[in-house]
Amino acid sequence: MEFDLINRYFLPLGQTLAAGELGIGDDGALLDPPEGTQLVVVTDTLVSGVHFPETTPPFDIGWKALAVNLSDLAAMGARPAFYSLGLTLPEVDSPWLSGFVNGLWAVSMSIETLKGQKSVCPLIGGDTTRGPLTITITAQGWVAKGKALRRQGAQPGDAIFVSGTIGEAGLGLDLVMNQQSVTHPHDLFALNRLNRPEPRVALGQALIGLATSCIDVSDGLLADLNHLLVASRVGAKLESQKMPLSSAVATWAIDNPIKPLCSGDDYELCFTVPAERVKQVSRLSVQLGLRLSCIGQITAEQGCWLDDRAINARGNGFDHFR
Amino acid sequence: MEFDLINRYFLPLGQTLAAGELGIGDDGALLDPPEGTQLVVVTDTLVSGVHFPETTPPFDIGWKALAVNLSDLAAMGARPAFYSLGLTLPEVDSPWLSGFVNGLWAVSMSIETLKGQKSVCPLIGGDTTRGPLTITITAQGWVAKGKALRRQGAQPGDAIFVSGTIGEAGLGLDLVMNQQSVTHPHDLFALNRLNRPEPRVALGQALIGLATSCIDVSDGLLADLNHLLVASRVGAKLESQKMPLSSAVATWAIDNPIKPLCSGDDYELCFTVPAERVKQVSRLSVQLGLRLSCIGQITAEQGCWLDDRAINARGNGFDHFR
Repeated sequence: MEFDLINRYFLPLGQTLAAGELGIGDDGALLDPPEGTQLVVVTDTLVSGVHFPETTPPFDIGWKALAVNLSDLAAMGARPAFYSLGLTLPEVDSPWLSGFVNGLWAVSMSIETLKGQKSVCPLIGGDTTRGPLTITITAQGWVAKGKALRRQGAQPGDAIFVSGTIGEAGLGLDLVMNQQSVTHPHDLFALNRLNRPEPRVALGQALIGLATSCIDVSDGLLADLNHLLVASRVGAKLESQKMPLSSAVATWAIDNPIKPLCSGDDYELCFTVPAERVKQVSRLSVQLGLRLSCIGQITAEQGCWLDDRAINARGNGFDHFR
Repeated sequence: MEFDLINRYFLPLGQTLAAGELGIGDDGALLDPPEGTQLVVVTDTLVSGVHFPETTPPFDIGWKALAVNLSDLAAMGARPAFYSLGLTLPEVDSPWLSGFVNGLWAVSMSIETLKGQKSVCPLIGGDTTRGPLTITITAQGWVAKGKALRRQGAQPGDAIFVSGTIGEAGLGLDLVMNQQSVTHPHDLFALNRLNRPEPRVALGQALIGLATSCIDVSDGLLADLNHLLVASRVGAKLESQKMPLSSAVATWAIDNPIKPLCSGDDYELCFTVPAERVKQVSRLSVQLGLRLSCIGQITAEQGCWLDDRAINARGNGFDHFR
């Protein structure tokens, strides 16, 4: 059958299991839990035309499908271990599959560990079916028992941090939707941030024992911070001047400074840290070579304020590109 | 947002986790591996119009989406533990969702244990997205380390067994596709077998230490047995008279006796047992109240014979209903 072809593409993604473990090829996969750990399970679906424009190159679709799941694992402080793939596609198209698989492979091989090395996250199984292009990945990781980062746990007085820069992917999406030909380096960078997010896996693991709460920023900084605030039953005061915006994003948002805080697809981590540990965050930033910006403070009063103006974080949520 | 509604439907499916474990509501779920076990992971996708007719009631879609995954866990001898759901649907339709969730719930609450009791398999998370109706479930279970049933392991001389009856779902699909109004009890039974397969979870666990190999029958008995034969590098001699066919299926297949062996969606287990343990299978059949039929024998010579006629099991594979 035509779909047998697919297995050839996916088998190479399934390497590097331990003896006694089992990946692709039986009714199920078999994995050994490391001692003293909890299993972390995350699931994200990407639908063509909803989560990415239909013109997105297959490499980028594969990259993003796995990266957004690894970002969820990072937000829990987990070490990525393996993933399953549910791939529905209209037809077997070899160049498309080849690009898609290469995108998955590139991410799965390039997970940064705390020590600046690379870790590997193999494919362990899944199902390929015929139908409209949809990708569901369930990724799994391990975390020391009882140590996982949660959305709840932020305390009044905690500093609020966000990694990297925000709004870049929103700018990238704007460029794609307006079908502008992208040639300026700033714009190419924005496009890259949209299509190839880098899950903050090493950061997530480093935040265990340091952060009081954590969430990954996928639907927009304000919307995701709001989830964290609700789970922790606290509020936040944010300072717009402290937001980590590139000059390209600042220019893009000149008429609407809220825009980068509401646009989606950043895949950065937003986390809270007690005042006495803020210095450790600075050291971590140097160690990881990753910008970690303090953007405000947790308040006992629930709600969210930007420069003393109350904002409805929830209402500004970004519901994908259409 | 409209899709927030969905969470209300799914939260009730997420009960019964242990203290310190975490289900729906954070970036990921947290689970405690029982000591001395391996994790078993299976994934199956159902696409509307491909894996079930678009007219299928939502309860049956929910039932089947989870049941087919539990059937894969059963084939490994695993104890089902929890599952993740990737649900893509065109719009938020309350009656549809309600039926779908009830179908998932009914299966997750009715898993038979070896002792004739019921076990529970909670939903731990997932993703709901907008798009053409597609359901991907990743289900997980636990099995004693090194004890999982595999497709490989069948030995020449082993007896080949299949549970329950076969071909019933094929007959059911025939009825649906021909849009016959179904009123005869035989036909209603066939339709039920198509839409609400019963994963053989208790059987799978009982077969650990008894069966030398096992697979679940989803694509047709001959096609799936062929996977087992290839993995075990052996052949099989089958006897058509020993096939467990209901009288309705026997009548349906009167012009083509191969038909029930090639039609899909049985979700029975096919397994091999050394001659000296065959009596234990009879006892197990009584204990479980489940028909377990010896349909032939494993041969050293590779290939598959039905009543001494060589058959191409692979070529007869059933590629869903269209």
